[in-house]
Amino acid sequence: MTGAVPRKKLLDVLAGQVHDRPPVWLMRQAGRYLPEYRALRARANGFLELCLTPAWAAEVTLQPIRRFAMDGAILFSDILMVPHGLGQAVAFREGEGPVLERLEEAADVRRLEPGRLRERTAPVFETVRRVRAELPEDVTLIGFAGSPWTVASYMIEGGSSRDFARAKRWLYSDEPGFDALIALLVEATVDYLGQQIEAGAEAIQLFDSWAGALASPAIARWVTAPNAAIVTRLRAAHPRVPVILFPRGAGPSYRAIAQAVAPDGIGLDTGVPVEWARAELPAGCALQGNLDPLALVAGGAALAREVRRIRDGLGGRPFIFNLGHGVLPETPPEHVAELVRLVRA
Amino acid sequence: MTGAVPRKKLLDVLAGQVHDRPPVWLMRQAGRYLPEYRALRARANGFLELCLTPAWAAEVTLQPIRRFAMDGAILFSDILMVPHGLGQAVAFREGEGPVLERLEEAADVRRLEPGRLRERTAPVFETVRRVRAELPEDVTLIGFAGSPWTVASYMIEGGSSRDFARAKRWLYSDEPGFDALIALLVEATVDYLGQQIEAGAEAIQLFDSWAGALASPAIARWVTAPNAAIVTRLRAAHPRVPVILFPRGAGPSYRAIAQAVAPDGIGLDTGVPVEWARAELPAGCALQGNLDPLALVAGGAALAREVRRIRDGLGGRPFIFNLGHGVLPETPPEHVAELVRLVRA
Repeated sequence: MTGAVPRKKLLDVLAGQVHDRPPVWLMRQAGRYLPEYRALRARANGFLELCLTPAWAAEVTLQPIRRFAMDGAILFSDILMVPHGLGQAVAFREGEGPVLERLEEAADVRRLEPGRLRERTAPVFETVRRVRAELPEDVTLIGFAGSPWTVASYMIEGGSSRDFARAKRWLYSDEPGFDALIALLVEATVDYLGQQIEAGAEAIQLFDSWAGALASPAIARWVTAPNAAIVTRLRAAHPRVPVILFPRGAGPSYRAIAQAVAPDGIGLDTGVPVEWARAELPAGCALQGNLDPLALVAGGAALAREVRRIRDGLGGRPFIFNLGHGVLPETPPEHVAELVRLVRA
Repeated sequence: MTGAVPRKKLLDVLAGQVHDRPPVWLMRQAGRYLPEYRALRARANGFLELCLTPAWAAEVTLQPIRRFAMDGAILFSDILMVPHGLGQAVAFREGEGPVLERLEEAADVRRLEPGRLRERTAPVFETVRRVRAELPEDVTLIGFAGSPWTVASYMIEGGSSRDFARAKRWLYSDEPGFDALIALLVEATVDYLGQQIEAGAEAIQLFDSWAGALASPAIARWVTAPNAAIVTRLRAAHPRVPVILFPRGAGPSYRAIAQAVAPDGIGLDTGVPVEWARAELPAGCALQGNLDPLALVAGGAALAREVRRIRDGLGGRPFIFNLGHGVLPETPPEHVAELVRLVRA
């Protein structure tokens, strides 16, 4: 036994180290597939209350760490905390997904209240403090936010969307107005993530979950540029906190995005071929991904084969094992245990 | 005036010719955005009856040709005609999308009736004959089918899906069973498209609309291989009929798919950067695409700029102007007229 602080493998990899046995965490590793989550969820008066009650949110964040000893603990929260913090009405209805009071025009953007963001999201930072105090020393606490385009799409659509008709009509017909919303979200996101870091987040993930809905010039303007601005400003203020960007569905644009944003790590969605990522993405960027969540649901031989394929394909580079999208509610928890075992074998 | 048959620009481009003014057609160019379509649709007892009544389906196919003088007329039908032809119960409920009696297990696949496919889809071939007889001589008649993975996903999910949980659980847990369904669909699709060609279809488009839902080894096995088998067999039987493959959402895998399937043309979804397509996709393959359908809804300066960008980006290669996905119901028909004007300017 020594008195040294254990190394955090996830941070080492984000700093460029290569490990034979990659660190592992899973998007939505805290959530509905865990019975202990469902038990706690049943006590809260809705999902928003669960997110905004630090004792509960901290407990939910820690549940998968206790069960599976993941290398990373992602804060239990939601990308819609920023719209909520800006004063937009956000509700989560059971089985329906989020419902927001829609932004319809530039005047609605001007009515948002960035000055009250910190106060309205204060419970999130308290959750971060509590988790950090309880987390094993070798586990990295990951804060997160949605990226501006993705968050804007919810704010304009009023929820999730199939074709992003309202958001895209806005961006095609009123570019300066759309730019103003994105600029506001860049500011808000930098502030919100800075507060998470001050409270103890050791790494950040930016979720641009709907990057894949945009044509390539729109990706350059509303995915690449705002994420680059956020990463640059966070890095200037907090040079030791790495940022992982997850531009889901960006396809061939993954390369241009990774080059221009230069995040410490990039999350690969399920569709990105690992050989392509290895050959085409900048060498300085850790790769994270990208098991199909349905292979985790299926388990068995397919799970073992897919884990091996991804480990072999991304080994030799700084690499963090993860899914290509979030854990699905129907996932058997014992398959998650098996996944962690396979990754560390 | 000469007695020569006018050239068909669309076929010329699929044979490798480069034109300054590309030919143009649009996915879902016949449909709900046209008042003359809605008038006819109101007379039919459901969408299936509309598809299976040759006089109506032919009329609907011709409507956008009359209005916009497109270079291609795509048969008005649906990719679920093959499941219908195989004896699976398929219904289209207003505002709900398709509903199919689900395939649950291998025994359900064995109950399908490939022997009755031609008889059950005979009205489709009669539609093709009628359209061909009425089509202006410089317009190319495009037949189509769904690709096996995409059609299988509907057959297993019982409709459209968000995460393809049932279909993917099947393919991860029972590869031989899934292979058997895909093999059956390859046979059925070759037969069905062969009948369309016999009836007068001059080019074929294969829609692999959900290619983007799969991880890369699954793309190789269930997108690339079956589409390659279909293209090879159609080409052997009908060497003069070109095939366009649309593997929507395939991202970086577009290149491997285009190389292995070697279609005459490849449809690019909205997210594929045109510079990337031009540099990375095989020179022998015509490129088709890829305007964002929402830019067409928006119209105005954004539409003009996007059309110019795509024309400039793909010019110099054999290139067919199209959308990156289907025309949306809320599209103003006058924007489509403007698009055609811009493409031909």
